[in-house]
Amino acid sequence: MKMVQPELDEGIPLEKVKEFSLEDLLGMAIKAEIGARRFYESLAERIGIEELKRKIEWLAGEEKKHEELLRRIYANTFPGKEIVFPKEHIGPELQPVARELRDVGDIVDLIRWAMKAEEIAAKFYAELEKRVDTEEKKRLMRYLSDMEWGHYYNLKAEYELLLDWEMYSQMMHVGP
Amino acid sequence: MKMVQPELDEGIPLEKVKEFSLEDLLGMAIKAEIGARRFYESLAERIGIEELKRKIEWLAGEEKKHEELLRRIYANTFPGKEIVFPKEHIGPELQPVARELRDVGDIVDLIRWAMKAEEIAAKFYAELEKRVDTEEKKRLMRYLSDMEWGHYYNLKAEYELLLDWEMYSQMMHVGP
Repeated sequence: MKMVQPELDEGIPLEKVKEFSLEDLLGMAIKAEIGARRFYESLAERIGIEELKRKIEWLAGEEKKHEELLRRIYANTFPGKEIVFPKEHIGPELQPVARELRDVGDIVDLIRWAMKAEEIAAKFYAELEKRVDTEEKKRLMRYLSDMEWGHYYNLKAEYELLLDWEMYSQMMHVGP
Repeated sequence: MKMVQPELDEGIPLEKVKEFSLEDLLGMAIKAEIGARRFYESLAERIGIEELKRKIEWLAGEEKKHEELLRRIYANTFPGKEIVFPKEHIGPELQPVARELRDVGDIVDLIRWAMKAEEIAAKFYAELEKRVDTEEKKRLMRYLSDMEWGHYYNLKAEYELLLDWEMYSQMMHVGP
C-alpha cells in the first residue's frame, strides 16, 4: 500500500547535496521551481475560498519568477549548455494536484506539504550559496532562500487559521 | 541633533509588554498596523522600480487587512468599547516617508527599518498570544506573527539584492 500522498515525493535528504555537481543542483532547483508552480496552479484551481485561492496563485507566480532567475544563473554559469534535469531531487518535490479536494482537511494536508517543501527549498538554496563561485551568485541564493522562508511563513499563517475552519470562514468572510 | 531618522520611532522595548493591559496592547497593535500601512503607501509612491513598488503596495494591503482583523478582535474582546490608542508603542513604529528618496541607498535604509519593524511586530504578536484568553484569539495571534515573519523574509530578500544595485537592476529588468 502506498503511504505517501501523490502530491508529495519525499526525495533525498538535504545532506546528500554534497554528492552532486553544481550543474546538477541548479538543474534540480529549476525542476523543483517548475514542480512547485504546477502544484500551486493546480491547487488554486481546486480551491473555492477566494482569499486563499489568490494567495496560492501569487505563490505560483513567485515560483515562475524564481525559475526564470535560476535559468539565467544557469546560462551565466554554464554558457551554451543545455540544462539537464537530474532524476533525483533534494527534499520533497511537489506534484500537481489531480484529485478533487473533498473538504478543508484535504486543503490543510496540502498546505502542510507545501510548507515542508518551502522549508527544504529555503535550506537547499542556503546550501547552494556555499557552492556557487561569485559574490553575485551567493547573493542571489540568499535572495531565493529568504523568499522561500517568506513563503513558508505565509503558508504557516494560513495553515494555523485553516485548522479552525469555523473561525477561518468567519475571519475571511467566506460563505453567506 | 536628532540621530534617529524621521521614518523610524524606536519605541519601548518588547520586555515592557508586561506593564500594559491587553486593551492597551491591542490598541498599540492597531496603531502599529496603521503606521506600517501609511509607511508602505508613502514608500511605494516614491519608488520608481515597478517590481519593488508592487511588492511594497502588496505589503500595505496586507497591513490594512491586519488592522481590520485586530479591530474585530478588539470589538469581540471589549464589546461596545471605543479603541484607545496609547501614546506609547512597543518596538519601532514606522512613520510615513515625507521626503524625496535620492538614491537606492535611501531605499535600502528604509527597507532595513521596515525589516526591523516587521521582526518586532512578529515577536509582539507572539507575546500577545500569551495574553489573550481563548484558543481562537491565540490562533489569530499566531497567524499575525507568522504573517509578519513572512513580510520580514520577503523584505530581507529584496534588501539582499538591493545592496548590489547593478545586479538588482539587471535581474529585475530595470532600465533600458
